[in-house]
Amino acid sequence: MLKRFFTPESVAVIGASKHPGKLGFKILKNVIDGGYKGKIYPINPSAEEEILNLKTYKTISEVPTPPDLAIIVIPAKLVPDVAEDCGKKGVKGLIVISAGFKEAGEDGKQREEALKEIVKKYHMRMIGPNCLGIIDVINNLNASFAFDMPTKGKISFITQSGALGTAVLDWAAKEDIGLSKFVSFGNMADVSETDLIEEFGEDPDTRVILLYMEGLQNGRKFIETARKVAMKKPIIMVKAGKSTAGRKAVSSHTGSLAGSDNAYNAALKQAGVIRANSVQELFDYAMAFSSQPVPQGRRVAIVTNAGGPAVMATDAVEVEGLYHAVISERTKASLREFLSPAANVNNPVDILGDALADTYGKAMELVLSEDNVDAIVAILTPQVITQIPESAEKISETTKGHKKPVVASFMGGKRMEEGIKVLMKNGIPNYPFPERAVSSIRAMVNYKEWNEKKKGDLPALKIHKDRVQKIIINIKDAERKTAGDIEGREILSSYGIKVVESFIAKNISECKNYFKKVRGPVVMKLVSPDILHKTEAGGVKVGIDSIKAAETAFKEIIEAARRYKKDAVIEGVQIQPLIAGGTEVIVGVNKDPQFGHLLMFGLGGIYVEILKDVSFRVIPITDVDAEEMIGEIKTVRMLKGFRNIPERDINAVKDVLLRVSQLCVDFPEIEEMDINPLMVLEKGKGAIAVDVRFSFTI
Amino acid sequence: MLKRFFTPESVAVIGASKHPGKLGFKILKNVIDGGYKGKIYPINPSAEEEILNLKTYKTISEVPTPPDLAIIVIPAKLVPDVAEDCGKKGVKGLIVISAGFKEAGEDGKQREEALKEIVKKYHMRMIGPNCLGIIDVINNLNASFAFDMPTKGKISFITQSGALGTAVLDWAAKEDIGLSKFVSFGNMADVSETDLIEEFGEDPDTRVILLYMEGLQNGRKFIETARKVAMKKPIIMVKAGKSTAGRKAVSSHTGSLAGSDNAYNAALKQAGVIRANSVQELFDYAMAFSSQPVPQGRRVAIVTNAGGPAVMATDAVEVEGLYHAVISERTKASLREFLSPAANVNNPVDILGDALADTYGKAMELVLSEDNVDAIVAILTPQVITQIPESAEKISETTKGHKKPVVASFMGGKRMEEGIKVLMKNGIPNYPFPERAVSSIRAMVNYKEWNEKKKGDLPALKIHKDRVQKIIINIKDAERKTAGDIEGREILSSYGIKVVESFIAKNISECKNYFKKVRGPVVMKLVSPDILHKTEAGGVKVGIDSIKAAETAFKEIIEAARRYKKDAVIEGVQIQPLIAGGTEVIVGVNKDPQFGHLLMFGLGGIYVEILKDVSFRVIPITDVDAEEMIGEIKTVRMLKGFRNIPERDINAVKDVLLRVSQLCVDFPEIEEMDINPLMVLEKGKGAIAVDVRFSFTI
Repeated sequence: MLKRFFTPESVAVIGASKHPGKLGFKILKNVIDGGYKGKIYPINPSAEEEILNLKTYKTISEVPTPPDLAIIVIPAKLVPDVAEDCGKKGVKGLIVISAGFKEAGEDGKQREEALKEIVKKYHMRMIGPNCLGIIDVINNLNASFAFDMPTKGKISFITQSGALGTAVLDWAAKEDIGLSKFVSFGNMADVSETDLIEEFGEDPDTRVILLYMEGLQNGRKFIETARKVAMKKPIIMVKAGKSTAGRKAVSSHTGSLAGSDNAYNAALKQAGVIRANSVQELFDYAMAFSSQPVPQGRRVAIVTNAGGPAVMATDAVEVEGLYHAVISERTKASLREFLSPAANVNNPVDILGDALADTYGKAMELVLSEDNVDAIVAILTPQVITQIPESAEKISETTKGHKKPVVASFMGGKRMEEGIKVLMKNGIPNYPFPERAVSSIRAMVNYKEWNEKKKGDLPALKIHKDRVQKIIINIKDAERKTAGDIEGREILSSYGIKVVESFIAKNISECKNYFKKVRGPVVMKLVSPDILHKTEAGGVKVGIDSIKAAETAFKEIIEAARRYKKDAVIEGVQIQPLIAGGTEVIVGVNKDPQFGHLLMFGLGGIYVEILKDVSFRVIPITDVDAEEMIGEIKTVRMLKGFRNIPERDINAVKDVLLRVSQLCVDFPEIEEMDINPLMVLEKGKGAIAVDVRFSFTI
Repeated sequence: MLKRFFTPESVAVIGASKHPGKLGFKILKNVIDGGYKGKIYPINPSAEEEILNLKTYKTISEVPTPPDLAIIVIPAKLVPDVAEDCGKKGVKGLIVISAGFKEAGEDGKQREEALKEIVKKYHMRMIGPNCLGIIDVINNLNASFAFDMPTKGKISFITQSGALGTAVLDWAAKEDIGLSKFVSFGNMADVSETDLIEEFGEDPDTRVILLYMEGLQNGRKFIETARKVAMKKPIIMVKAGKSTAGRKAVSSHTGSLAGSDNAYNAALKQAGVIRANSVQELFDYAMAFSSQPVPQGRRVAIVTNAGGPAVMATDAVEVEGLYHAVISERTKASLREFLSPAANVNNPVDILGDALADTYGKAMELVLSEDNVDAIVAILTPQVITQIPESAEKISETTKGHKKPVVASFMGGKRMEEGIKVLMKNGIPNYPFPERAVSSIRAMVNYKEWNEKKKGDLPALKIHKDRVQKIIINIKDAERKTAGDIEGREILSSYGIKVVESFIAKNISECKNYFKKVRGPVVMKLVSPDILHKTEAGGVKVGIDSIKAAETAFKEIIEAARRYKKDAVIEGVQIQPLIAGGTEVIVGVNKDPQFGHLLMFGLGGIYVEILKDVSFRVIPITDVDAEEMIGEIKTVRMLKGFRNIPERDINAVKDVLLRVSQLCVDFPEIEEMDINPLMVLEKGKGAIAVDVRFSFTI
């Protein structure tokens, strides 16, 4: 319910000024010039009767009726008291432009906390502090110190960086890109990006939601909300601060805590949020979404008056994983009727350099009508007799009778300007280079596919939560942060994950006794809290298959350990049946500061260590998520049967992923865990955890 | 020696027309309007006395003195005769604008061949046919039907697509990008891209050479020439037609044969040519190269008045593999002297939203003087009091006293135009988004690093060419296209590549005899031309280590083969010592239509089949190339010692790569070869070819 910000009945500008150099002047002027129809109350304790021909009040309390919205642009120190006055008066929303809060040291942080308390106390909502303000283009409210009012459009843009906001507004004006709402929310002390996407999700004037973010306030809540909103309209986000160094820049910039980039990729994928890699991409995609229908499939056709740019577009179609539409014989025949014999009636449809506007119109009409085509890229280069604006008109006309997206690449400079204006006016986005046009189609296809796919369920699993509860209480009581080997295995088996049998032999006779029980072949491993790299220390023996060999192995392991580290505490030797003929995978969890538990999956050993061929999801995951996680790694073919390696039990892996997800949901105190390796056996034979490691935040 | 095209003493326009709608008019007008200072002869058999105030001739033979250059724009059918006339007259260069040659079916192809013959006969040179023409901006010659003369600059642009040329010229004019030379060469019947880069390599007015290519005429020659030219100045190329479908578009477009994209990547890398992925990237890079010095290292500093864009730039620095410059304490102290305490004096240096032009100037001067900085990205967003053109002036001034590259990202639209003009005028390239600015620095760093690195040698190898000669003659005589197993092994060992011993036992007693000789574990493999998948057929046994086992294995292999394919011809069983404890790699060669032999290297098995983790080079390779090929694959760590796998004999792999390269140079008839696997043993113990396959073009 953020209506108070976008369609207020009346607005107060607290800190309004008559000096054109001051922000308080600029903002008041913007409210007036923007065409706001409600009551405007300039407020300034030292002001004369009128500013910009409006009656001015000394304090908010003097205003005849409580304004819905107050824009505050006064020194930070004075903000809390003024906010209190606003609360008392009955103001519903505050936009705090002033800087000098969380971003400005300890004092500022305390001031922001105080401000938040006041906002809460009076049931107000607040955007800011430390922001550029907001603009509702459709409702003519410019409550910001931006330079101009953008033109009307269907794109709503939310930015964490005010300066980027100013640049984008200036750029959008030049490029003829219309906006619906613009919000710079600064420190997000109250209204967050999640509130805003929820609001814009319901806003009939918003067709696509854009975000520039450096960090999310509450990652988990953002995912949940975004997932719902994304079902209704596309959300596209630039997440800056990807790199380690970028993250440092973020912290000193807005003091927000950026999550790891893997977590963001996973979370945004799960939420159906389209990730753009730059602000250029953000608006490239937004233009397409805001004015064109989403394609029904991946089949792209190109209509062009030049071969070279068509080749570039064709390359891009392949790079983006789209398909080249196949033009049917019927359409080809119709194209041949009016095109010269040298023209190409296959895709790319090359209507040649001497094509006039009419030719564009006829060719576009036929290609749009072609059943095998889902989306079209219309390319035009400025050749000698090319009719540029006329072709733009024709292309625009033909699109109106169809529900397929058309994007254009009218390539050139000055000569193209008029034609591009015609396109943009008709809602056909133009891109200076064909690659960007194709990439925008890809974004639309991604959205469409995400929107239509089964999202999956969180299946009910048979588990023993109480058993795990007890183990963790024991660990806490012992003031430990990690689970012991046996505890770890018990946790897994309580959650229905198969675990390899294991026994720790403290001496040779225990070793021999256990071996008799298991019979051949086993793996024997040193147990010592002081020796981490057991292989290096000579502490691992594989494939021991006789009592005699077991005895020897035991001795050798202990001796090797002594040699490796004289004073190491040696607790014994672990003996496990050797699981042969499986494929090693790793299932891990770590905690991301913004999203919480992050689940990782990949093939073990060099695949994870050297190739980093792993996939991530934020917990909880659905059964569809689990499937996708497995399918996403490059080495998945090794699980699907490859050469003489038979197909592995992928269902068992899926099951383990879901159970680990449930475990982490039930026990938020799990800080990290690794099942490494999980041995995946042949199809139908399951998967067995061989080693497991847990740590907790206690 | 293409001077005749760019600085001719006199020019004839054959097909000059007085009708403004005709190309022959447009071209003549362009020559005149371009400011050409030499004699101009319009030629048209049916023309009156004068066109555009110039005396007109009916034929070239009537012209008083032979013109250096003739621009031909008449119907294709008439071109050969006119070319003949030109030859007779003594014309030195032809630019054939007319279409209707190779690109237009069989007739056109023959016409083009005839034209080529004529050009050769008279020792002329020709650009085209089927092209837009050329422009020498510096020497005021516009011999094209492009619309305008570009502004003067240091960039020379060669394009295979004329239509793209028109788009780029229009775009460059709008973006204030200056050019030196522009060449659209159409069908490349004579003057090729290689001739042009050679020419521009010597041209003092060209600082960077750009190419838009769909296919190279002679890949090998291009590499050789480009490598030399690239030592002097950067060459940047867009190679369109990357994808399979893109390649189809190429063939129907200019009839050229595109090589595989892997071959292009390898070749361009070897030649030091910078590959751009789009025309946008091409000019992004070109702007930086044409006006800024190349950075001495990878350390990038960012100076900004806004946090958000700085975060984006910081991300880009990391993505591009550049380094974040560390600002020294001394510089930080100097920055603090005039910046507000809230400013960030670390990198990114954030001089805050209220920074004026002077602040930009002072900060830039300090950061440019900082020893730890190699390149600077200057970011500016249009905030309330930002002085845009003034800041551009200050930034431009400070760069003059330094030899470090500065690129800018003045972000915005209309409000930025004046400032960007100031930057461009002063040779500071501006990019609308910071990512593109950083990416251009990366291109410069790549060039600098390629230029300075050791290129390596083709080492002299001890080989026995005569032996291989004999083997191949035998194969040819037998009208075979492939080498047999023994022949393949002999070829390798003649070139000094170690090959595993091998023996084909036709019966059990031969098998037993051979086993006695070898002792120790062997691999036994079915030999049958009719059974390809030997493992599947039960035709492979590994680790046989006794005579008895060998006997059993022999029987089982033969029986399994019979069961697998009743009528298969069985030639025997191959027996080889088992090479244990090595890492399997693959060394392969195939022939690319544009570059010839292409050498491939990668780890064997799933690494090549699933992960496609391989590297390519065009043969011949230098020792440095061989090293880089090995270092380039992601799984190289597995050869360098990983966990309990010891370091492998990388030098031996390098040696094999060089020997295979030499072999292919000596025997161009090798069509394909594969050493798979090559077993790479521990460091110092060499590498042994286990299996080899050769095929020849006979």
